[in-house]
Amino acid sequence: MEDRYSDLEVKTCTPDQLHPKPDTSSLVFGKYFTDHMLEVPWNSQKGWMKPVISPIHDLQIHPAAKVLHYAIELFEGMKAYRGEDGRIRLFRPDRNMARMLNTAKRASLPAFDADEMIKCIKKLVQIDKEWIPHSTTSSLYIRPTFIATDPSLGVASPNQALLYVILCPVGPYFTSGLKPISLMADPQYVRSWPGGCGALKMGANYAPTIFIQKKSELLGHQQVLWLYGSDHQLTEVGTMNIFVFMKNKNGEKELVTPPLDGLILPGVTRLSLLELAREWKEFNVVERTITMKEVIQAHEEERLLEIFGAGTACVVCPVASISYQGHEYTIPSTESSLSQRFYKAMGDIHYGRLQHRWAVEVD
Amino acid sequence: MEDRYSDLEVKTCTPDQLHPKPDTSSLVFGKYFTDHMLEVPWNSQKGWMKPVISPIHDLQIHPAAKVLHYAIELFEGMKAYRGEDGRIRLFRPDRNMARMLNTAKRASLPAFDADEMIKCIKKLVQIDKEWIPHSTTSSLYIRPTFIATDPSLGVASPNQALLYVILCPVGPYFTSGLKPISLMADPQYVRSWPGGCGALKMGANYAPTIFIQKKSELLGHQQVLWLYGSDHQLTEVGTMNIFVFMKNKNGEKELVTPPLDGLILPGVTRLSLLELAREWKEFNVVERTITMKEVIQAHEEERLLEIFGAGTACVVCPVASISYQGHEYTIPSTESSLSQRFYKAMGDIHYGRLQHRWAVEVD
Repeated sequence: MEDRYSDLEVKTCTPDQLHPKPDTSSLVFGKYFTDHMLEVPWNSQKGWMKPVISPIHDLQIHPAAKVLHYAIELFEGMKAYRGEDGRIRLFRPDRNMARMLNTAKRASLPAFDADEMIKCIKKLVQIDKEWIPHSTTSSLYIRPTFIATDPSLGVASPNQALLYVILCPVGPYFTSGLKPISLMADPQYVRSWPGGCGALKMGANYAPTIFIQKKSELLGHQQVLWLYGSDHQLTEVGTMNIFVFMKNKNGEKELVTPPLDGLILPGVTRLSLLELAREWKEFNVVERTITMKEVIQAHEEERLLEIFGAGTACVVCPVASISYQGHEYTIPSTESSLSQRFYKAMGDIHYGRLQHRWAVEVD
Repeated sequence: MEDRYSDLEVKTCTPDQLHPKPDTSSLVFGKYFTDHMLEVPWNSQKGWMKPVISPIHDLQIHPAAKVLHYAIELFEGMKAYRGEDGRIRLFRPDRNMARMLNTAKRASLPAFDADEMIKCIKKLVQIDKEWIPHSTTSSLYIRPTFIATDPSLGVASPNQALLYVILCPVGPYFTSGLKPISLMADPQYVRSWPGGCGALKMGANYAPTIFIQKKSELLGHQQVLWLYGSDHQLTEVGTMNIFVFMKNKNGEKELVTPPLDGLILPGVTRLSLLELAREWKEFNVVERTITMKEVIQAHEEERLLEIFGAGTACVVCPVASISYQGHEYTIPSTESSLSQRFYKAMGDIHYGRLQHRWAVEVD
């Protein structure tokens, strides 16, 4: 193993290679990239080779590379924030690297040293730190990616791979703040299933969803609410975890999110919201299966308080309505909602208004 | 649409760019590539651009290309054969192109003109025809591939894509003829599910299987028998369709294969074997769900005649044994088996010993 920070080679851009930075107001998710990237090649003979940071460039990939045929690929999504105190912070990078290692195992890609990778990522962020917007609604999206590159058409474990990291400055997910979204919930489309890979961040989980997402847009919705099973369990919303805030039949407030049963991605934002809510001790916090029948019953009995998605891209994302079996269910929303409170609490940590163990300084 | 054969640009190798051809005896599946490749680029503004045949080369792919993150990719597998009469033939290319169009739609990749694509592929095969082994146990494997290339991290329909075709000379799938294989059948691993994409040739269907395939090898087996549902339906074997030849309870011979219910790939070899058997009219030919319980009962009552896989790579592949729930079931095999008969019948068509509408001459 040579995937060591101490071996890191850094080739920075010459002044003429630097790109102009986009206006913070014009940032579109995942469209602009910073000047540099990190690459760590691997092969089954030599193991990991030394990490290299260099000017961002196209990859040279053989047309038979396994990533292009069998989707042997995975990624992570994490962020760096420029705090109000000017310091740059990553949010729980250890969690993303732990999940990336889990995904790599299932994808037949090799293990790597998570701590060394975090050090290399920090260095990359430091080098491109001028790209991090001076704005507490923007951030730098970090995309670690891991692909199988050997030029051989056998459906088999790869003998050659590349782990790389690119960076994108990103604005607020919705320009008008936390704008609630409308969902299409159609049980005929299934994102994930027992015995599959839905709990891992493999590229293979995403391609099949795009056609369904487009269908939801054609029907006037913004995202898909993914259901599973004959009882129509809620699993995820778009590419986010889902939370339902409601009163139970005893009148107690309860925050419900589906359990980590193999069908859903174990989101870092999901985990963080659960941990915050459990610290607050103001309402029940429950990880359990929740079905559409239960949501509709709570809606009819006026016990449904809020539904929202949670993920790295938007932090929280309130749900305005759900279209399901010919009905349009309007989801309540209030100014002083739980999602707003989570958004503020997470922002306090991200932007250094609150010193917190989850925020890891880069410099 | 400019994906026209009449627009095809051909840049052949200079003599020093030509590669040495491997020995027919040393051919390993998908490891050697011919001198040229076909590329047809597309983008959402201009549509299809002109097809180009040029010396095989690495692709220049942006590190944010959708194929590398969200597995927006698909492929086909077909073959060209050098007949005993010296003529080069493709096997049912229209079927592969029709399936490729279906997969493209589900993968949010653009439609193309299948007939024009077949013409371009024929030209590519003609140019590299010296690579087709002079052997009636070998062939030229043709791999059309379609990837999303736009450099943007949004999980959305691609605006830029590349359809390309590479060629591999391949030997017999098993060097010692039709060597029966042993299977691991473990219902905890599920390849495909209702509401998913298992009936399409998307890259996303393959990455999750490699870990399970490796498990089966560690347990001493060669392939995975993929089951589905609480009744343990047989669906596929490895990357092949599955056929069960048995006597039913009335003592009638019956060839059973799972139906095209969305869980299995609609194989071109599967279709061809069904059509051949229906022409022969010697036994019942049935597309229906078949469960492990039924297979085991037939085995115990000595009504099980044969089990075999069917696919482009090996044509037919007899099954020697199935390991299931702690038992090892030995599958009968005979010298004059149905799989041998299919292998010969298909070979007669592939190698021009029999003139047949499925074999399409290239030159």
